[in-house]
Amino acid sequence: MRILGIDPGYATIGFGLIEAERAQVHMVTYGAITTPAGLPLSRRLHQIGTDMAELIRQTKPDVIAIEELFFNTNITTGIAVAHARGVLLYAAEDAGVPLYEYTPGQVKLAVTGYGKAEKHQVMDMTKRLLKLKAVPRPDDAADALAIALCHARSATSRLPQANGVKETI
Amino acid sequence: MRILGIDPGYATIGFGLIEAERAQVHMVTYGAITTPAGLPLSRRLHQIGTDMAELIRQTKPDVIAIEELFFNTNITTGIAVAHARGVLLYAAEDAGVPLYEYTPGQVKLAVTGYGKAEKHQVMDMTKRLLKLKAVPRPDDAADALAIALCHARSATSRLPQANGVKETI
Repeated sequence: MRILGIDPGYATIGFGLIEAERAQVHMVTYGAITTPAGLPLSRRLHQIGTDMAELIRQTKPDVIAIEELFFNTNITTGIAVAHARGVLLYAAEDAGVPLYEYTPGQVKLAVTGYGKAEKHQVMDMTKRLLKLKAVPRPDDAADALAIALCHARSATSRLPQANGVKETI
Repeated sequence: MRILGIDPGYATIGFGLIEAERAQVHMVTYGAITTPAGLPLSRRLHQIGTDMAELIRQTKPDVIAIEELFFNTNITTGIAVAHARGVLLYAAEDAGVPLYEYTPGQVKLAVTGYGKAEKHQVMDMTKRLLKLKAVPRPDDAADALAIALCHARSATSRLPQANGVKETI
């Protein structure tokens, strides 16, 4: 199963593609969609939408896992990220790829076993689980890989019957 | 100039098309895009995106005027509306239609002459300016017509030179 993790944003959108088969996971590719600061928001949103559609075409994911918005104190940034996240969800739906959403706490719990883990702990575990030599850059890409891992680990634990049936056929 | 006003939302998106030539304005059509409450947000966003693209194709606006988000106390609704507004901006950009954004205060000021006007005052003035028999329903459509009117009145006052040139040619 090819899982495309997405860390939403409007200046930088991290992505990370992993291949997961039962307990086995490995990293396929990762990176970031970026938009220039000088452009109006609507132009940046359009670029995000077309780049996301292109990313899905190129990476051919079976599922997309995207983080839910965590609203911190900066409401203006939060509103812009919500605009961009809407466009990302639109592009995923438009490509017909099943979509799963996870909270930051769910990602931390699935990756480190602790829902309130520090960011560096999540990154270290992401590196170890995917057997990478270093934590991927930018951070948004590492976050996206963690979100993809969260789906891989959640899907395995949530669907024991489905996996069992698959094994016996 | 055909101006398509948009009142953003995720359950109901009001739209209103007016034709404006200098001080003359008249209503062409209005209505609302709606999405069913039972669907997941991502599916609703996809419907909003495709319906908005279709609306632009059918109404062929020269410009689109859309209201900026006013964040009230309900942050959850606000985040969902921001997602939807992102998709609306994406669709406008994708169609290549010039986009103008106005705050609720700018709309009130342009339509009634008073930036803190009550909602019913804005609706009454919208009805009078467009010579309608009644305030359009739903409210979202009336709001969208007010936003279109705001652009018509702002554009006239903001661009005296351009209008002047046009008259002399």
